[in-house]
Amino acid sequence: MKQLNIGLIGCGFMGRTHANAYSQVNHFFDLQYEPVRKAVCARSEAAARAFAAKWGFESFETDWRKLVQRKDIDLIDIASPNDTHAEIAIAAAKAGKMILCEKPLSMNGPEGLKMVRAVEKAKVPNMVWYNYRRVPAVTLAKQLIEEGRLGRIFHYRAKFLQDWTISPELPQGGAALWRLDLKVAGSGVTGDLLAHCIDTALWLNGGIEKVNAMTETFIKERKHNLTGKVERVGIDDACAFLARFRNGSLATFESTRYARGHKALYTFEINGEHASISWDLHDLHRLQYFDHRDEGRVRGWRSLHITDGDQPYMKHWWVPGLQIGYEHTFIHQVADFLEGLSSGRAASPTFRDALETQCVCDAVLKSARTQKWEKVAVSSGK
Amino acid sequence: MKQLNIGLIGCGFMGRTHANAYSQVNHFFDLQYEPVRKAVCARSEAAARAFAAKWGFESFETDWRKLVQRKDIDLIDIASPNDTHAEIAIAAAKAGKMILCEKPLSMNGPEGLKMVRAVEKAKVPNMVWYNYRRVPAVTLAKQLIEEGRLGRIFHYRAKFLQDWTISPELPQGGAALWRLDLKVAGSGVTGDLLAHCIDTALWLNGGIEKVNAMTETFIKERKHNLTGKVERVGIDDACAFLARFRNGSLATFESTRYARGHKALYTFEINGEHASISWDLHDLHRLQYFDHRDEGRVRGWRSLHITDGDQPYMKHWWVPGLQIGYEHTFIHQVADFLEGLSSGRAASPTFRDALETQCVCDAVLKSARTQKWEKVAVSSGK
Amino acid sequence: MKQLNIGLIGCGFMGRTHANAYSQVNHFFDLQYEPVRKAVCARSEAAARAFAAKWGFESFETDWRKLVQRKDIDLIDIASPNDTHAEIAIAAAKAGKMILCEKPLSMNGPEGLKMVRAVEKAKVPNMVWYNYRRVPAVTLAKQLIEEGRLGRIFHYRAKFLQDWTISPELPQGGAALWRLDLKVAGSGVTGDLLAHCIDTALWLNGGIEKVNAMTETFIKERKHNLTGKVERVGIDDACAFLARFRNGSLATFESTRYARGHKALYTFEINGEHASISWDLHDLHRLQYFDHRDEGRVRGWRSLHITDGDQPYMKHWWVPGLQIGYEHTFIHQVADFLEGLSSGRAASPTFRDALETQCVCDAVLKSARTQKWEKVAVSSGK
Amino acid sequence: MKQLNIGLIGCGFMGRTHANAYSQVNHFFDLQYEPVRKAVCARSEAAARAFAAKWGFESFETDWRKLVQRKDIDLIDIASPNDTHAEIAIAAAKAGKMILCEKPLSMNGPEGLKMVRAVEKAKVPNMVWYNYRRVPAVTLAKQLIEEGRLGRIFHYRAKFLQDWTISPELPQGGAALWRLDLKVAGSGVTGDLLAHCIDTALWLNGGIEKVNAMTETFIKERKHNLTGKVERVGIDDACAFLARFRNGSLATFESTRYARGHKALYTFEINGEHASISWDLHDLHRLQYFDHRDEGRVRGWRSLHITDGDQPYMKHWWVPGLQIGYEHTFIHQVADFLEGLSSGRAASPTFRDALETQCVCDAVLKSARTQKWEKVAVSSGK
Repeated sequence: MKQLNIGLIGCGFMGRTHANAYSQVNHFFDLQYEPVRKAVCARSEAAARAFAAKWGFESFETDWRKLVQRKDIDLIDIASPNDTHAEIAIAAAKAGKMILCEKPLSMNGPEGLKMVRAVEKAKVPNMVWYNYRRVPAVTLAKQLIEEGRLGRIFHYRAKFLQDWTISPELPQGGAALWRLDLKVAGSGVTGDLLAHCIDTALWLNGGIEKVNAMTETFIKERKHNLTGKVERVGIDDACAFLARFRNGSLATFESTRYARGHKALYTFEINGEHASISWDLHDLHRLQYFDHRDEGRVRGWRSLHITDGDQPYMKHWWVPGLQIGYEHTFIHQVADFLEGLSSGRAASPTFRDALETQCVCDAVLKSARTQKWEKVAVSSGK
Repeated sequence: MKQLNIGLIGCGFMGRTHANAYSQVNHFFDLQYEPVRKAVCARSEAAARAFAAKWGFESFETDWRKLVQRKDIDLIDIASPNDTHAEIAIAAAKAGKMILCEKPLSMNGPEGLKMVRAVEKAKVPNMVWYNYRRVPAVTLAKQLIEEGRLGRIFHYRAKFLQDWTISPELPQGGAALWRLDLKVAGSGVTGDLLAHCIDTALWLNGGIEKVNAMTETFIKERKHNLTGKVERVGIDDACAFLARFRNGSLATFESTRYARGHKALYTFEINGEHASISWDLHDLHRLQYFDHRDEGRVRGWRSLHITDGDQPYMKHWWVPGLQIGYEHTFIHQVADFLEGLSSGRAASPTFRDALETQCVCDAVLKSARTQKWEKVAVSSGK
Repeated sequence: MKQLNIGLIGCGFMGRTHANAYSQVNHFFDLQYEPVRKAVCARSEAAARAFAAKWGFESFETDWRKLVQRKDIDLIDIASPNDTHAEIAIAAAKAGKMILCEKPLSMNGPEGLKMVRAVEKAKVPNMVWYNYRRVPAVTLAKQLIEEGRLGRIFHYRAKFLQDWTISPELPQGGAALWRLDLKVAGSGVTGDLLAHCIDTALWLNGGIEKVNAMTETFIKERKHNLTGKVERVGIDDACAFLARFRNGSLATFESTRYARGHKALYTFEINGEHASISWDLHDLHRLQYFDHRDEGRVRGWRSLHITDGDQPYMKHWWVPGLQIGYEHTFIHQVADFLEGLSSGRAASPTFRDALETQCVCDAVLKSARTQKWEKVAVSSGK
Repeated sequence: MKQLNIGLIGCGFMGRTHANAYSQVNHFFDLQYEPVRKAVCARSEAAARAFAAKWGFESFETDWRKLVQRKDIDLIDIASPNDTHAEIAIAAAKAGKMILCEKPLSMNGPEGLKMVRAVEKAKVPNMVWYNYRRVPAVTLAKQLIEEGRLGRIFHYRAKFLQDWTISPELPQGGAALWRLDLKVAGSGVTGDLLAHCIDTALWLNGGIEKVNAMTETFIKERKHNLTGKVERVGIDDACAFLARFRNGSLATFESTRYARGHKALYTFEINGEHASISWDLHDLHRLQYFDHRDEGRVRGWRSLHITDGDQPYMKHWWVPGLQIGYEHTFIHQVADFLEGLSSGRAASPTFRDALETQCVCDAVLKSARTQKWEKVAVSSGK
């Protein structure tokens, strides 16, 4: 068993999901690598110390630059806010570290392109934490599509609906609320939520040619937690867009934090000539599948309970009927990354894969400003 | 087109469903017979007159004996309370009328047997309104079972849950509340609700060998609407029983009017070696179907939306996706009855078929008293 | 009881739903008017004769102009293809007839405006058959919104998904396939399906300010049933659009006949500050309702089974738990129209109401051509 | 942080769930105790060694007697087959160890009583792994019932349906199939599955007075994996029973491994005067709740997505909308046990609590033999 020393940057919500993945992966997967929780880094020493104690990290740092330079670190895992990704990733690549980066890859496409160039120049293994690819139901959807079961694709539709920012009393910025701060987050729901929808869509349905978007900020001003003042809200509270995929299919995408009744309802549906698939995150252990080739009288949407050993990842867990949850998607992603180190086939999405999502996000935000259809320009970066 | 003159007895809830069926059947089915709304009968002249006007009956009566003797009546339809069925049916048979009778057939098995003997002696077409056999989804279940798709049957379970009698303020007896009056209804949920479950079960899964039941009356006393006094409640508020079918399968049945949250939730499920089926009345236009022969990774319960032309009865209605409702089951039953007159193959359930349900009910109520397993004794009556 | 003599034009699918509504309405509603099935009109004498016989119309015509001139006709009901609506309606208005017209009102806004002017000049009662307003669940949604339960509205989304034209073997035009013929239908899914979504949306959420659409025709050529030749398909197979409502809410609309697995899945959802509502046509007897004011621990989407007497229209039907279906919406609409004649308050949607839907459709189709946001221009027509 | 040295007996499916719970509990709960994976025990040295390596146990044993005598062990966790529970538990109690025991507690009530006496005499903390009490949705159900929200209880119904033993080719006995071997398992579905249903029911609805059961063994003979011969199957493949609770409510229970289409469908529903609750294991993160006190027009079953911080256990996990799964129930149970050590209030169910479930199982199996109602006799054992 080869040990892989992890340096994790960020002790927030995402830091926990990553730490858990490192802690759990070898309990459930037979791998040649074992991640070692070597060091965690946070600006607050108290936070770093507590996190290290809780999650069994051997040490902690308060300056990511120091962590990146440590000889005993093999892999830098970036779980800090969006505005820090590029600088850390580029430094880590220069230091020859493998890099795992939280999504979205970057604040925008050009920044992401620099990151791609950095990791490709350094030839370091790299991956972005678009974890929903590893929901077993979503992975099964990918398999069914790749097997050609759907035939020609006509439609793709995705939504990511939340309702946690409806109150005007909610402040913006700082700590757990950095996602509401344009300077730190880069955008609102587009980078936070639609990026997930886009990543899955590109994976399942191929490239997006052009988009036509609208955005809205419903609450125009909020108290800023860092300045203490009421400030203009810069992020998009909601974003919807039309899209055309390169394969000729039509799509609608929508995301908002103002959809009362939905906590984290990421859904997608794909309609093909022969079959259709739909999925939603609130029941992530199920996949809905309709096959028109079933005999007419008994044709209907099948609710697949994705807990059987022949369904993706599930042989590693319990027995049929017993569901897994959210954090398992991160464990799967680490497992695949480690497997990729052994096999030499990089686990997806790499920084380059994730750059395409960034470019779609850029086109979406641009379209919302220009009020026109915008082509998705994916820089080759080479 | 041959005209069939109907004499309907009873202007209550069931009277409406029957009148509607006569009114609608020729609009949707191509038949050789046309039911003519000739006369309706109710004890109250005002009620009979109003009902006749509303539903287009040509005349009305206030004495069923008179109706039964009318030469211009071909068919007597009994939609009056349970305690009147036998006397009317026997008189109608003697008068040579065809007879349709609301369910349950009778107050009990022995009474039902007399009715069977009467119609069989008179050789008059006869049928009992167990309408749920004609829900298209239920009829499809029957077809799938008959085609052998389920293989050996292991389990049958049925429930009929309501919640409308929970309040102790609800009086018993009289008018719309006769179902709470033992003398008029014969029993409580057993004859009213479980009779439906049993009829469907006998149809889908064959004969029941023995039963083991418990009953309960939760509210012991209620004001009686006819006497004005608080009286002991004689009916069963709830009844559950275990059963063994002749085909070796095991069953549970349950009915109650004290299941908060359920208005008329009749459900059944049948588990076979190869496939399973379940259905519920609250979404009567759907059938759930699981086929183990589907490929493992995409095996799941299929939700069949029973609105296609190749599904039972549905080619007579609208277009795929557009659902029908409760009253249509009565229309289907009249259509089948009329078709049976043409073809000479009696539509089911006949009085004799319905007698078997009565005998199961008798065994259930007896078991609840004896607290023992009781065999179902179906008198041949010949 | 005042009699209202109906002259129905069109014996197809919609003709049946209207005839049924006239036949049934007085059985279930206490009204001052009774529609009389006086005459039906179809180009084919055989079809007209058969329809009259089946549905109890006293007479038939083969020329609508003759029907419109008949003195014994009070109301002209237009259930013929879209390209005939305007001419018939204008003639009927001139003849002083009340007019009910199938949806969409017209081939386009300008044509619709002429129709509005005609009926308003003639001062004849008029209504368009946007029947889904009268699904009890949808009417309840309207009530809840009007009571202010949702608060400020943030989002509206609607879809109407079908899959019946996926096969390239399906011909276009003629008989039941006129909906695929641009000259007869005016448009594809936009006028046929999105018009329903738009009508409901305008009713529930107020006016639409601007739209941004894309359309697609997946199968470019089909055999035309009338010419017998393979011809270019002119209609839109699919249409999706973004919209902004005047109340500041954002919307997405989508319709297609290429969504495998969906027969007639009309769905809408509306998200407000305090509550959200969603509905779908495949389970039309249910309404999903989420109220954020419920206590946190037990807050969730409520599945309302719309079969209780205190829910819209349902006291006229059966008992709690027993569902109604598709055709009932037409019965409700006739009932409301007749009630409106008595009360003097016109039932909606009038021609003028429906014109607004037409104008939204025009803007949608224009936007699909210009690839730009288009304002909805509703001509006052006065 | 006090360390608690665990000695785990059994490396099978349950062993994994327990090991995982010890590994995870301190990552998510702030506790005064930390379980230390000190030693694991299995008869096979290879299995024990591999399990210890995988799960980070410091040592392993192949003789449970040796483990029980080890001074460095504080707690014995019994995850071996049913026929070993009593002997190990009694020895462990004598050795003064805390004991956690897999369910069912014992082979039968009398054996369980000895175990209760042993732990109570030794005054060692003890608990049985009826893990489903700690599904957050189930714990919430308990809270709602305790708050009196349901009022008088009328009905309880529970089922545990599986389909994994339908094939007659499946052998019995040995390794993962010991649950099919009467001598090792004690019974079939009654002890394996109904025991879960009964434990939950006793917890939620109080004591059971009497039961009336039927059992069936559908496949009479199977090859035995240990003897290599075809032998009579001794276990119950299916068991259903009627029950009366001490609080006057009526119940039905059913379990089978022959319900095609169900992998592990444990469901229960409880109907009270004012409210009802239902739950199922296939969507364990949801709870269905109906409250009759809701306003009539908007009254319906609420689907609660149990992922909010104010719902049981969920503040320890992720954010609203993100579900947890099966193994988390064991983590919760360890957390509660450790909390109980600190607070001095024993976490439930203790051996004594679990004995009552055993006594109900005994009555059920007796009733199936006698074909009569049997009272549940719970020995006080004091």
